[in-house]
Amino acid sequence: MKFFTVGPAELYPTCQQHYQTAFEQQIGSISHRSEAFRKIYQHTDEQLRALLNIPATHQIYFTSSATEIWERLLLNLVDQYSFHFVQGAFSQKFYDYANSLQKKPTLHKVQDGLGFENLNEINIEENTELICFTQNETASGIRVPEDEMSASKPRFTNALICCDVVSAVPYVAVDFTTMDSAFFSVQKGMGMPPGLGVWIVNEACLNKAEQLKQNGKNIGAHFQLSAFAKNYKKFETPSTPNTMAIYVLGKIAEDMNNYGIQKIRQETETKFETLYDFIQQEERFHFLSSNKNHLSRTTMVANSTIAASELNKKLKPHEMIIASGYGSFKDQQIRIANFPSIKMDELENLLSVI
Amino acid sequence: MKFFTVGPAELYPTCQQHYQTAFEQQIGSISHRSEAFRKIYQHTDEQLRALLNIPATHQIYFTSSATEIWERLLLNLVDQYSFHFVQGAFSQKFYDYANSLQKKPTLHKVQDGLGFENLNEINIEENTELICFTQNETASGIRVPEDEMSASKPRFTNALICCDVVSAVPYVAVDFTTMDSAFFSVQKGMGMPPGLGVWIVNEACLNKAEQLKQNGKNIGAHFQLSAFAKNYKKFETPSTPNTMAIYVLGKIAEDMNNYGIQKIRQETETKFETLYDFIQQEERFHFLSSNKNHLSRTTMVANSTIAASELNKKLKPHEMIIASGYGSFKDQQIRIANFPSIKMDELENLLSVI
Repeated sequence: MKFFTVGPAELYPTCQQHYQTAFEQQIGSISHRSEAFRKIYQHTDEQLRALLNIPATHQIYFTSSATEIWERLLLNLVDQYSFHFVQGAFSQKFYDYANSLQKKPTLHKVQDGLGFENLNEINIEENTELICFTQNETASGIRVPEDEMSASKPRFTNALICCDVVSAVPYVAVDFTTMDSAFFSVQKGMGMPPGLGVWIVNEACLNKAEQLKQNGKNIGAHFQLSAFAKNYKKFETPSTPNTMAIYVLGKIAEDMNNYGIQKIRQETETKFETLYDFIQQEERFHFLSSNKNHLSRTTMVANSTIAASELNKKLKPHEMIIASGYGSFKDQQIRIANFPSIKMDELENLLSVI
Repeated sequence: MKFFTVGPAELYPTCQQHYQTAFEQQIGSISHRSEAFRKIYQHTDEQLRALLNIPATHQIYFTSSATEIWERLLLNLVDQYSFHFVQGAFSQKFYDYANSLQKKPTLHKVQDGLGFENLNEINIEENTELICFTQNETASGIRVPEDEMSASKPRFTNALICCDVVSAVPYVAVDFTTMDSAFFSVQKGMGMPPGLGVWIVNEACLNKAEQLKQNGKNIGAHFQLSAFAKNYKKFETPSTPNTMAIYVLGKIAEDMNNYGIQKIRQETETKFETLYDFIQQEERFHFLSSNKNHLSRTTMVANSTIAASELNKKLKPHEMIIASGYGSFKDQQIRIANFPSIKMDELENLLSVI
């Protein structure tokens, strides 16, 4: 079965082999305080830096999911005021987490299926501590173009800025000189089974967490940023992590680096254009947004007159599966992944059957 | 290499094969909202119930680690007052988490390497909301015998009782009629790579979390008990879990059920006696506690005149490794696992080399 689903998704071609090697090397049994583990962490760190152009100003930590990181960001970086750009169910949940944690978040929400117009003219209060972007909304298929995110940094020197790049990695080119934190999980574009989150933070984030802690604020107990930072110095983690997945992530990042990130980006864009043209030409499908620049390059979402479940019946004999719409859009929308694990001929094959 | 370490530990003999099957069945790509996933969850649920004698009064949820569950227990079940039996570094951390979360925990701590005497005469305040046992302290090798934990229930009808059985499963026989919650991670006795936590809760826990929420308390955002309970009804999870590990855990639990939990327990006890006699007879090692009933059956800790690192040099040519002491006891103690993945002849082999 070829998974065109948006995550969990098709595994990267080398994924299973790396897991097998991990078993052969008994990585599932090694201590996370051993030299063997430190080397694995360091290797994954180096390969992710190369792949995603992460500068030395930022550290890379491992959690179990991106969902978990929403909470950790809000606990460690926000006393009261976070600001949330919401263009779908996942960015909405990030905002909901802030409410559950009894913060005072501000919601800036667009209509279903649309993106943010004139993003950098939107008013954000001076007291805002954290501005939250969901760069690629997996539910609605609406992105925030990287340059628009980046333009926020000079405007808000008092606020930290973070972006959820869960389903955009490795395609997305985040400019980390304008981004304090970014995070993703591995079961999307990295083509791995779920169970690992990656959290990238700079020193400003560490300082903010420290400041909140010193002021007697509750920044949570598990995964405090200071614990990550302390352990990171020797490439260790605060508690036992998903060691195997950290190893495999480093190996897949290495494979992608060898393949070439520019090539991956170009192929993603070429496949996107093919998908885009297909949806535009087909009577059964249409985009809610007419702004092509707002459409996700990696997770395409379109309204559909046929439920995904019906399309999947047709696809099943061909051993292919796409994703339904998210939540209440289950039967009205289809979602198709455009991750590195999907090749152009496979995509064309899918579209010819659809 | 044979891992006699206390976790991450030696993998269960069938572990790698189950991961391979999981890859063949593409479990890393399936949606956690699919029928395929629900069947996996249900199977793992059924096998764990059989293995650990978990009654229908309790539900089984999945997190990413036991460390994470410490925080979730305190957030969901405690407004202010938790009580912590502390006999080592991990039970201490559980208590520390309560402080970090700005609760008002009570600490009942014994001297290093000793167990609790007359546990059921220890005073616990009436206002206590959660009594926290660490049934098997992986750092100190000191256990709380099951019957002594169970005797707490009739004494404290107002408090919920939970136990950390991280390194005691599947050997430990928790009496769930006297235990509101129990939890463990899979990289110890279950013989899996790290990355999955198992959280067992009853309705009293769900009610308490609901009550705190209704009273406007901050019970956290991620992994609220109500979200687990709602999703559990259809064998789903609140967010994307470590799907592969849930599958493999169910399969290993099934293997253990087929092997027989009584046989596993008997073998564990026989191996324990062998280990115990060895330590008692050896000049180089000794137990801090003279109460045999307080000694862990699954993770043996002994003071040692030789550092574990030195012993491991001797063991390396024989492809064996043991664990050092935890934290500040690194060079003064050794720790040896007695999990189901260790067979008697392997243990005897280890002891003959030591």
